[in-house]
Amino acid sequence: MPTETTTILVNQFLSVHFDSVQRVLNTRTMSTDAAETPLTSVKEARRFMIDCLKAVDTPTEHAEAMADLLVEADYRGIFSHGMNRLGMYVNDVKAGACDAKAVPKILQETPATAWVDGQNGLGAVVGNFCMSLAIEKAKNVGVGWVCAKGSNHYGIAGMYSMMALERGLLGMSFTNTSPFMSPTRSKKAALGTNPLTLAAPGENGESFILDMATTTVAVGKIEMQKRKDEPIPHGWAQDSEGESTTDAFEAYDVGCLMPLGGREITSGYKGYGLGMLVEIFCGILSGSLYGPYIRKWGSTADVANLGQCFIAIDPKCFAPGFECRMSDLMNYLHNMEPADPSKPVLVAGDPEKAYKVLVDKAGGIRYIKNQLDTCLQLAKELNVVPLQHLQHTCDC
Amino acid sequence: MPTETTTILVNQFLSVHFDSVQRVLNTRTMSTDAAETPLTSVKEARRFMIDCLKAVDTPTEHAEAMADLLVEADYRGIFSHGMNRLGMYVNDVKAGACDAKAVPKILQETPATAWVDGQNGLGAVVGNFCMSLAIEKAKNVGVGWVCAKGSNHYGIAGMYSMMALERGLLGMSFTNTSPFMSPTRSKKAALGTNPLTLAAPGENGESFILDMATTTVAVGKIEMQKRKDEPIPHGWAQDSEGESTTDAFEAYDVGCLMPLGGREITSGYKGYGLGMLVEIFCGILSGSLYGPYIRKWGSTADVANLGQCFIAIDPKCFAPGFECRMSDLMNYLHNMEPADPSKPVLVAGDPEKAYKVLVDKAGGIRYIKNQLDTCLQLAKELNVVPLQHLQHTCDC
Repeated sequence: MPTETTTILVNQFLSVHFDSVQRVLNTRTMSTDAAETPLTSVKEARRFMIDCLKAVDTPTEHAEAMADLLVEADYRGIFSHGMNRLGMYVNDVKAGACDAKAVPKILQETPATAWVDGQNGLGAVVGNFCMSLAIEKAKNVGVGWVCAKGSNHYGIAGMYSMMALERGLLGMSFTNTSPFMSPTRSKKAALGTNPLTLAAPGENGESFILDMATTTVAVGKIEMQKRKDEPIPHGWAQDSEGESTTDAFEAYDVGCLMPLGGREITSGYKGYGLGMLVEIFCGILSGSLYGPYIRKWGSTADVANLGQCFIAIDPKCFAPGFECRMSDLMNYLHNMEPADPSKPVLVAGDPEKAYKVLVDKAGGIRYIKNQLDTCLQLAKELNVVPLQHLQHTCDC
Repeated sequence: MPTETTTILVNQFLSVHFDSVQRVLNTRTMSTDAAETPLTSVKEARRFMIDCLKAVDTPTEHAEAMADLLVEADYRGIFSHGMNRLGMYVNDVKAGACDAKAVPKILQETPATAWVDGQNGLGAVVGNFCMSLAIEKAKNVGVGWVCAKGSNHYGIAGMYSMMALERGLLGMSFTNTSPFMSPTRSKKAALGTNPLTLAAPGENGESFILDMATTTVAVGKIEMQKRKDEPIPHGWAQDSEGESTTDAFEAYDVGCLMPLGGREITSGYKGYGLGMLVEIFCGILSGSLYGPYIRKWGSTADVANLGQCFIAIDPKCFAPGFECRMSDLMNYLHNMEPADPSKPVLVAGDPEKAYKVLVDKAGGIRYIKNQLDTCLQLAKELNVVPLQHLQHTCDC
């Protein structure tokens, strides 16, 4: 949850940059497809998630951890990783592909490192365990570097980095994922979207929060172009021959995302290298599955056995005044002259912080109709109280 | 220097992929502009570098460290960072902007971290000191994380990662640099090309060596298009209005490189975020200069006061068999079906390893005429023995 200071600062930022942020947000679900749906309070969304997970015998504490993770994604406007994935997690547990009761176990450790077996537990359970351990180690010796095997999808990677942030530390987290990305020059996918994230504290609750897939875009963005019947730019995805395509339908069917940088001429091999970096920190260090051996997206036929990596760094072990320099640099960037006056220069994390303020102003999250229908269906299937909505209308 | 096994493996790789690697290398200096110049042995190139640096009162040990760094770049085909920069380092020392005698000092440390003052010493001296310290800490507690302020240009970032690699560790290094990159949406540059690198060991001397600027390309690539009077692709650089340009001449004059990913529509903000990540690890953690405050490229009016970060990780602290999994994944990637059969799928570091083999086969490095002229000029200015060349002709 944001502190009061954060909210004031974000409000100040919004008062200057509101139009631009609004434009960013217009590419998200809340302000487009969802205009006519009722609002859901953050608390109620969380309640529904907990109930659904408990209905498939997830212990309360584990269900709460998952709900905190998922609701935070929706609160930040990252709808792909929130309620949208609840059904998938429920299915994983129901099918026995994921053990909702499992508790992670430390296999080996030093003052600065730990190798953890997630024991096929829920992603948030493994992630929280590992990042807490990394934070403890960073508080003791300056750095904590924890790798887990036997994990499951852990939601927004930034969630774990922010755990470190809340304790005044720098936080990083990485996960491997099902194959979706084509290594430069290759016809097929071999690595996942493999996200990486870094959170770093500034002054007065300010922060830098980078949370990015190492592919140019996620599949969701292609899906949106498809829905609009519009082409995609070169550099997003490949056709079946391994060439960059602008056809959203073909891109979606082939399912080969391009690494950040796109084609070889625009240095796509760097994004491919970054995808490998994430895989090295996750699957290769932890001994989980890796790259092409990870199960297909959405499959519950096998356990996921994902690898994840969590790093915490204590800035106090280096030059004093970290937060001050961090805020100064972010302030410099925010005040740079933009090419288009209506699009101010942003810093990683700005759009998500602004979205939280919008949700607070509106009084709740506005899910799209399709999502609400899915929730209703899930409530019936699992025999839990359906998602309740707020009665008043948002005026933001 | 490569082990015998590495050379055999690279030779095997080359025997399969020679044409493709040759094509990669054809974009480098050795096989194009330099066809008619004489060869220089690696040993002689190193001797010349040491002599030039000693001529401006650099202690032998420090001159050797710099020469090892620069000659390794040329040996790997990264000509921009080798002999090409010798004059710049000499000028920095002559002008008093860099203190060639300075020895780095530890300001603060824990079992896993160190904060170092480079004391304005030569980049290789600071880099070697910091990475050695990181390696020692990784050997003790699994991770070593060292940040230095008061440093200078430290050549190819990969050099330091490879120091860790040689000891069976994962190595990373980062440096901030003079402003050249425009944050997404901005008209001007505020961050450097800010490279990041990761080296990781496979089996039998195999390795993954990622060494990349967080901009789409370096200035040198634009310079080459300019020389050929050819356009550049979108996503490389901006015009004076902050828009992506295809005009190599304008791009070169404006000097605003775009972050990896290029324009906003192709997720250039991720490359901008990565440039920030490097700056956070370098300038912000170490308390050196950062971002827009770093001196202009090539200036000797002020000290550089660069920030750098060095990380070593011991894979033995995690799942056994790291090298085996690493080699397996690289092998999988090398054997993927390429979109164009003449362009096999590569892994980060392949082209540079192949280049070393070509240099060995040729018996030396083939510098372009312009570089040889500069060396002759430098020899006269500094009164050192000019660079000597081999008499025989390369048959590769």
